[in-house]
Amino acid sequence: MTTVVVYYSGYGHTKVVAERVAEGANASLIAIDNNGDIQESDWQQLNEAKTIIFGAPTYMGGVPWQFKKFADATSKPWFSRAWQDKLFAGFSNSASLNGDKQVSLQYLQTLASQHGGIWISLGMLPANTQAATRQDLNNLGGSVGLLVQSPSDAGVEAMASGDLDTAVKFGERIAAVSARFN
Amino acid sequence: MTTVVVYYSGYGHTKVVAERVAEGANASLIAIDNNGDIQESDWQQLNEAKTIIFGAPTYMGGVPWQFKKFADATSKPWFSRAWQDKLFAGFSNSASLNGDKQVSLQYLQTLASQHGGIWISLGMLPANTQAATRQDLNNLGGSVGLLVQSPSDAGVEAMASGDLDTAVKFGERIAAVSARFN
Amino acid sequence: MTTVVVYYSGYGHTKVVAERVAEGANASLIAIDNNGDIQESDWQQLNEAKTIIFGAPTYMGGVPWQFKKFADATSKPWFSRAWQDKLFAGFSNSASLNGDKQVSLQYLQTLASQHGGIWISLGMLPANTQAATRQDLNNLGGSVGLLVQSPSDAGVEAMASGDLDTAVKFGERIAAVSARFN
Amino acid sequence: MTTVVVYYSGYGHTKVVAERVAEGANASLIAIDNNGDIQESDWQQLNEAKTIIFGAPTYMGGVPWQFKKFADATSKPWFSRAWQDKLFAGFSNSASLNGDKQVSLQYLQTLASQHGGIWISLGMLPANTQAATRQDLNNLGGSVGLLVQSPSDAGVEAMASGDLDTAVKFGERIAAVSARFN
Repeated sequence: MTTVVVYYSGYGHTKVVAERVAEGANASLIAIDNNGDIQESDWQQLNEAKTIIFGAPTYMGGVPWQFKKFADATSKPWFSRAWQDKLFAGFSNSASLNGDKQVSLQYLQTLASQHGGIWISLGMLPANTQAATRQDLNNLGGSVGLLVQSPSDAGVEAMASGDLDTAVKFGERIAAVSARFN
Repeated sequence: MTTVVVYYSGYGHTKVVAERVAEGANASLIAIDNNGDIQESDWQQLNEAKTIIFGAPTYMGGVPWQFKKFADATSKPWFSRAWQDKLFAGFSNSASLNGDKQVSLQYLQTLASQHGGIWISLGMLPANTQAATRQDLNNLGGSVGLLVQSPSDAGVEAMASGDLDTAVKFGERIAAVSARFN
Repeated sequence: MTTVVVYYSGYGHTKVVAERVAEGANASLIAIDNNGDIQESDWQQLNEAKTIIFGAPTYMGGVPWQFKKFADATSKPWFSRAWQDKLFAGFSNSASLNGDKQVSLQYLQTLASQHGGIWISLGMLPANTQAATRQDLNNLGGSVGLLVQSPSDAGVEAMASGDLDTAVKFGERIAAVSARFN
Repeated sequence: MTTVVVYYSGYGHTKVVAERVAEGANASLIAIDNNGDIQESDWQQLNEAKTIIFGAPTYMGGVPWQFKKFADATSKPWFSRAWQDKLFAGFSNSASLNGDKQVSLQYLQTLASQHGGIWISLGMLPANTQAATRQDLNNLGGSVGLLVQSPSDAGVEAMASGDLDTAVKFGERIAAVSARFN
């Protein structure tokens, strides 16, 4: 049984997050293309997966249309209940510390529920003292899923190390929870 | 100053709702096409509008990708603050009485906030006694915006009259509130 | 390992739902009192539970203050991560078909995530054809959790049988999913 | 016609935010007490206000029970539509940069909609470049309302100046929008 990260990345930052989550979760990666499509073999992989991790940036207060086009295309497994009881988790990345990333995570969580899924939360306390920095684990203080910030003028090399380390830990948690579910 | 209903309709039901809201609000209509696009003249109309009403069905727990493609394209007026202080309102339609229509309305409301907008709620008490029927105003009990149900096997002629009457009243309310805002 | 339904009921309707969910899940019941408190032994039971089911009506667009007082008091197990990796699920009841029950469910889901929990969705397709009635399973069309409607003038004996049957099935599903998690 | 900030503050930080918003909005202040109550004269002031600003910290993923007890008590003006067409706005404060503040803002927005209100968003672009600091306006990147962070070990004197400056600007915006509404 496998774990799959299915994500859309507009400028490469969310791709880096997806790779770190996949590294921690020992997961394979499916990239949604700029037209909102994935390959036929990708659908097969998703149907066979035990755990599916959704990833998307937050654009204009929600997941990009390309991710939503993928989500709309899951109406086929929705109708046949093909994804019932799969495990799900999710992450979002945006330019602001807060932004409306939570709206994206709520959507990913709703999508998982539409499929009759089981949602794995981030599972880490926040680093929110005065001494906390962007190099700490869960410095943004997520709970529903992983939150990542990429400043509007930052290349992928300038993403906060703490957010990316959190991505790896989140992947490890997803793997550990998935292993407990038979 | 004008009011515009910008909507996506996949099978015609949401189009009927949009027309009823527009009737009440004395608004013009802009239909997002199946590729998620609108015309250049539509953008001009939106930029000049005093009030913008968003309408979309709920697919897989959120607005369809075509509506989101439109929303993502509003990043241009977002960046220039061209829509700041406009009035906004919204509605969603789906096959279930509840479904996840609220998730769509929350998204529409978030999109309006991204633009620095002012949100007009539905403004009607629900009809929720034992004697209430689907012919009553606001029988679904919306508050953030207008909620409409179209059963999964119903043509547009079989939509509940109460929901459509509520659409007209909602349009009238939007017109009245807009008139008070200088 | 046990399952516990912890709920607040203002007028008795949500109590009936809690009992039906508990019947399906073979769960014990903890009632939050009108002051928002539970007993010390209840806290022990929650700490020892494998699965916790949250239940509350929707008042003024969210869970009642009594439920929230309970939620705020869970900051103690939150801080010590005592509830990490527990399974959670939830339900809400209100007078309208839709109302803002989704806002309550989103809150319950957020609370579970704060605790590092794993959320079990409703897992049933909606009954949303023209022939569907309030006697059908999941006629309201929930996905995140169980939705129940109790008309504003209805006693507990007048609650829709379909909603209550859905409550039992939801409990059974929670038990089945919990059994698969080691 | 007046503007009122009604808020709950557990440790004093949210009180400071409320005062800054009130300064900008030329508003009076109503503090919800530790039992979730306000005075009879406060209710009169709210009933007569043109604009009501809700403020609360985020505890365990939502507004504290004391604020919710106040919200539940607004069922009286809800039923009589006494607050219909009032203007509303809101803010939330928590220890994390993100946390689940958005869930609180969504609740405040839902409460305003229950009352048939009109919601004023934050209306500022975020400061989210690499050079941005916690001394900038809207550094957290709110849109629905004002977001404030108070680190878990920070006294009120250590709150970020940028967040508090944003609070004043937000108040000024609310005053300007309110003045345009007749």
